[in-house]
Amino acid sequence: MSPVQLDEKSLRTKSPRSDSPVHGQSTVVKNIPFGHYVFERLLNSGAKSIFGVPGDFNLPLLEYLYDEDLVANGLQWIGTCNELNGAYAADGYSRYTNKLGCVITTYGVGELSALNGVAGAFAEDVKVLHIIGVSPSRFRENEQFRSHNVHHLVPAIDSQQPPNHQVYFDMVKDRVCCSSAFLDDINTAADRLDQVIVDICKNSKPGYVFIPVDFADKLVSNKNLIQNPIIDMDTVIESYKDENATKIAGDRLLQWIYESNAPSVFSDLLVDRFNLRKELRQFIETADVWNYNTAMGKSTLDERNPKYLGLYKGAETGKEMQATVDSSDLILHFGPAKNEINCGYYSFHFNENARIIELSNNIIQFIDIKDKNASTVEEANFVSVLKYVNDNLDKSKLSFSYPPVPKSNHSCEYDNNDSITQKSLKEIIPNYFNDGDVLIVETGSFQFGVPNMQFAREMKYITQSFYLSIGMALPAALGVGCGMRDYPRSHIVDQALVPKDYIPRLILCEGDGAAQMTIQEFASYIRYKIPMEILVWNNNGYTVERAINGPTRSYNDIAPFKWTALLNVFGDFENKFNESVTVEKNDELVQLLNKWKSCKERANIKLAEVMLPVMDIPQELNAMLVNGKPN
Amino acid sequence: MSPVQLDEKSLRTKSPRSDSPVHGQSTVVKNIPFGHYVFERLLNSGAKSIFGVPGDFNLPLLEYLYDEDLVANGLQWIGTCNELNGAYAADGYSRYTNKLGCVITTYGVGELSALNGVAGAFAEDVKVLHIIGVSPSRFRENEQFRSHNVHHLVPAIDSQQPPNHQVYFDMVKDRVCCSSAFLDDINTAADRLDQVIVDICKNSKPGYVFIPVDFADKLVSNKNLIQNPIIDMDTVIESYKDENATKIAGDRLLQWIYESNAPSVFSDLLVDRFNLRKELRQFIETADVWNYNTAMGKSTLDERNPKYLGLYKGAETGKEMQATVDSSDLILHFGPAKNEINCGYYSFHFNENARIIELSNNIIQFIDIKDKNASTVEEANFVSVLKYVNDNLDKSKLSFSYPPVPKSNHSCEYDNNDSITQKSLKEIIPNYFNDGDVLIVETGSFQFGVPNMQFAREMKYITQSFYLSIGMALPAALGVGCGMRDYPRSHIVDQALVPKDYIPRLILCEGDGAAQMTIQEFASYIRYKIPMEILVWNNNGYTVERAINGPTRSYNDIAPFKWTALLNVFGDFENKFNESVTVEKNDELVQLLNKWKSCKERANIKLAEVMLPVMDIPQELNAMLVNGKPN
Ligand SMILES: Cc1ncc(C[n+]2csc(CCOP(=O)(O)OP(=O)(O)O)c2C)c(N)n1
Ligand SMILES: Cc1ncc(C[n+]2csc(CCOP(=O)(O)OP(=O)(O)O)c2C)c(N)n1
Repeated sequence: MSPVQLDEKSLRTKSPRSDSPVHGQSTVVKNIPFGHYVFERLLNSGAKSIFGVPGDFNLPLLEYLYDEDLVANGLQWIGTCNELNGAYAADGYSRYTNKLGCVITTYGVGELSALNGVAGAFAEDVKVLHIIGVSPSRFRENEQFRSHNVHHLVPAIDSQQPPNHQVYFDMVKDRVCCSSAFLDDINTAADRLDQVIVDICKNSKPGYVFIPVDFADKLVSNKNLIQNPIIDMDTVIESYKDENATKIAGDRLLQWIYESNAPSVFSDLLVDRFNLRKELRQFIETADVWNYNTAMGKSTLDERNPKYLGLYKGAETGKEMQATVDSSDLILHFGPAKNEINCGYYSFHFNENARIIELSNNIIQFIDIKDKNASTVEEANFVSVLKYVNDNLDKSKLSFSYPPVPKSNHSCEYDNNDSITQKSLKEIIPNYFNDGDVLIVETGSFQFGVPNMQFAREMKYITQSFYLSIGMALPAALGVGCGMRDYPRSHIVDQALVPKDYIPRLILCEGDGAAQMTIQEFASYIRYKIPMEILVWNNNGYTVERAINGPTRSYNDIAPFKWTALLNVFGDFENKFNESVTVEKNDELVQLLNKWKSCKERANIKLAEVMLPVMDIPQELNAMLVNGKPN
Repeated sequence: MSPVQLDEKSLRTKSPRSDSPVHGQSTVVKNIPFGHYVFERLLNSGAKSIFGVPGDFNLPLLEYLYDEDLVANGLQWIGTCNELNGAYAADGYSRYTNKLGCVITTYGVGELSALNGVAGAFAEDVKVLHIIGVSPSRFRENEQFRSHNVHHLVPAIDSQQPPNHQVYFDMVKDRVCCSSAFLDDINTAADRLDQVIVDICKNSKPGYVFIPVDFADKLVSNKNLIQNPIIDMDTVIESYKDENATKIAGDRLLQWIYESNAPSVFSDLLVDRFNLRKELRQFIETADVWNYNTAMGKSTLDERNPKYLGLYKGAETGKEMQATVDSSDLILHFGPAKNEINCGYYSFHFNENARIIELSNNIIQFIDIKDKNASTVEEANFVSVLKYVNDNLDKSKLSFSYPPVPKSNHSCEYDNNDSITQKSLKEIIPNYFNDGDVLIVETGSFQFGVPNMQFAREMKYITQSFYLSIGMALPAALGVGCGMRDYPRSHIVDQALVPKDYIPRLILCEGDGAAQMTIQEFASYIRYKIPMEILVWNNNGYTVERAINGPTRSYNDIAPFKWTALLNVFGDFENKFNESVTVEKNDELVQLLNKWKSCKERANIKLAEVMLPVMDIPQELNAMLVNGKPN
């Protein structure tokens, strides 16, 4: 029971691993074990850290994790404390890197535990690959075994009947994944794996691959790895883009913007997921247009841009913001995520003479509100179209005459000696950010105020805004931390804006109620040496729920934890690698965060338990509850 | 952040609640809120402790938990730290009480998190009811809302399409539950809830009920509660039993046993699930027959019975045991659970002239191996048949001539000063049990030796033998603890065998790898004051997996925890209610367990971290791995 040794060097230095995939590993066509194929493919798709939990049906596959060549190229197993946490971590890894996030589990017990994490990735368009080790193929191929009830597999309802050996596949197929394959023939296994990864990249949605335990050691040709060494979003989109459709959509967009007086750009979720932050900023800067982000598009834009107007969320962002939106005659909505949370319970509203263009990965829609006219270009994708537009924009044809925008100068005061509140956090937290920091915020009351906070430059914001599964952020932070190590500073669009020697911080904001759900992953932070800063909001229970119903009911209470002792108990036995404190007053918090902010070393985990009033919620959550109330 | 106060009184005394359901609550036909109906129904089905996690879609339902009459009759909310743990706890509650175990979660995020727990209950025939609070009915009834993407609900794969508001229902229906209802009409809501509960009791399998958040406050008639105040296994089986089929099956069984020279009784899983331990023991004692239990039937029999022969598990229980089984000309297999684990990878073997009768809840099969003849009585159930047989058995017609059974006297020695091993545990642990204790064992290496340990009398053994989801036992112990408080000593078949003033202990054996999966539920032990004794096997990782593959691979390692500090950090801040120690040597463990064994108070939680060698497994696990190896 010796404590994990965090060596300072591995904490402080940038990862030695490169940003480029390991194509060229396979150079001569030959047969290789499918297990090796799987991990070489994953590595080439950008998944260096692989998350999950072992089980007898995936062990032979996991053996191939230790191939020297692959390890040398950065492949690493990150064992999580349970499978749900593994899925959350893979989700976080993909959200940060925009590459594949992979979780490996075992039949039934593991995969079903992970399911909610995958469903969340599905709901929020994250590229998670869930690989499941399943029982040997003889249970499906061989009559003698078909009727056997295998461990981890639910039997048929009628115990006299044979079980359905693919029952879990049937559950998830077409429901929480865009692509899935239950491998049943080693000859097609490599192709089918590749196809699932292609689909994941194309749709930015999770995929499932079920691998029989006996397949890991079987031989397959490595020819796909030579022909298509890399499968990632760029290669996939390049392979299916339709030049003609791109031109049609692009030209029409250019036409509409040339005809517009006051266009507005909405930057939404899929801008992030399809790696378009750079291109969209370029467009905004060149065209010099008003721009807003939706809640799910937070951190995709440059908030220092003079025409950045902030968050739009329909009825919830107030009348002044609505008036501004109404004054636009053209809305370019990039990467929309249409759901009740992101769209203020479907209260988005536009000028009745406005035109709207919605651009996403598989459709571009042109909507003319006045003419009640909508046309779509289905074969076009917004990645190609945006590039086309950037290449072909003729600035001389732009003639905008924007009305003045009312400057909202909401500065809310707080007293240094007072207890911390959600209101004071709104002032304190933005000052704590450095350019380039990565912020991950748990579902809970604090989260709802974040989209209105001004961010430092080149930050990346990660949160589950729509699916809202509490406990997700804590293990996701493990994944993000691994992503930041595997691909340092890769979230920064313009490297010049963040000092060269600055190592971005990973900052996690957690509610106490959410944290208890997945708290054991603190142990993985220590085990895998993930430096970060953690703010735990201790408001003594489920405040979001208290605000909705039963403010004093026992169902909204939680068990008390000694938050500042957790990292110690979860592996840092000598308290060498964490500093954990409790703060109650505004000035305590400000001083602490200033100290953290100026610390240059990424040598440990800093945790603050922040005491908050039980019934205190940010004003944005209140607005949302009012807006969302059914009438 | 004040620590939970455990008051000694509530810890020590038997629960004031009675063992009888609360029928008679509703006496006059009237309309009551559906939320009230739900909890009165649950209480009447025996579910006093209700497990789960709140969410906005179930909050209005949860409000009805606090109805004074219901609370007075023992209804209590047990909030778990996450939903998977809630499902495990409900499973444990039902395994202990044999009544309904109920878990309540919220749409998507909560229900999918709980799914693996329900699947485990399904695989092992446990009466779990999963209630899910779902979005308001307007999302299914009203065209305007149907296309809306609601939080917690996964959108359609094609984001242009409306979501399937019942997608989660479609996933679980007919796969991990024997009955399910997505309520869509308040007029049928009460009937449909009742039907699911009837099905659960009839099949001893989980059921699902999806309740729209707006239904809780809607009015329904309480007439079902008056007409059928109680729905439980007894009433349900009574209502569907077929007198004729019972007589046919019962008479045939009697005939066969009268014709037998050396009959054997196998007591299996469903004997426990259908509450037949008492009746089966009566039969065994009266007929004076050889009796064995299967692995999943452990603790159903009286192991002091002179004709108790121990565990039968096919090839894994060895040649001598097989010879004994082979010498039987009639096998009465009560409540069979046919799966590879329980049946030693389908290696059960019988005399080629033997007859076999398999009896379960929905079928009785008569098999004559010699004649290659099998006939079934489908309408009969073994509950009614066993009662019939007990009532009609004519002892004078029995004439058995059993061959002598070789007494296997395996005493394995260990040295007091040596380190603890799985082998020494085999000697030490059985001595630690008192009559009437409740033992819950986690999936892991230790578990596989338990069925061969001699139990004290009137013990109840709880473990997940077949589905084998690690981490299940820890939250299940919370459920068991609640069950023991709600229904004290209810597992004891013959109360006279356990001293009147003895309060049975709850003993939990946990592996370190499994414990990390669900460790936060330690906080609920403290919060809900569940006295127990915990043995944590610290063998530094996933030993079962190491025995199968990759003994030194990183995927079989886990993060180290400070086991003896966990209860402190999880709520017992002043260490008043737990004693946690580490033991390494046999004599340390023996002394500790002797102290625990003789302690009369159930006033706290005792935890021992037991150090074990990394690669040490019980001999039974080894036998199983050899037997289960595919050839
Ligand atoms: C897995 C899951 N279970 C339940 C919920 C319902 N839920 C939403 S917010 C919340 C409370 C979160 O509490 P905490 O993290 O303490 O944040 P607070 O609102 O108190 O700031 C709950 C229970 C959920 N969203 N996800
Ligand atoms: C939810 C789940 N995940 C993974 C597995 C695969 N598995 C079976 S036993 C085991 C190791 C258990 O380790 P521990 O609790 O320490 O017991 P040990 O075998 O070391 O005694 C694992 C990972 C499983 N059965 N269930």
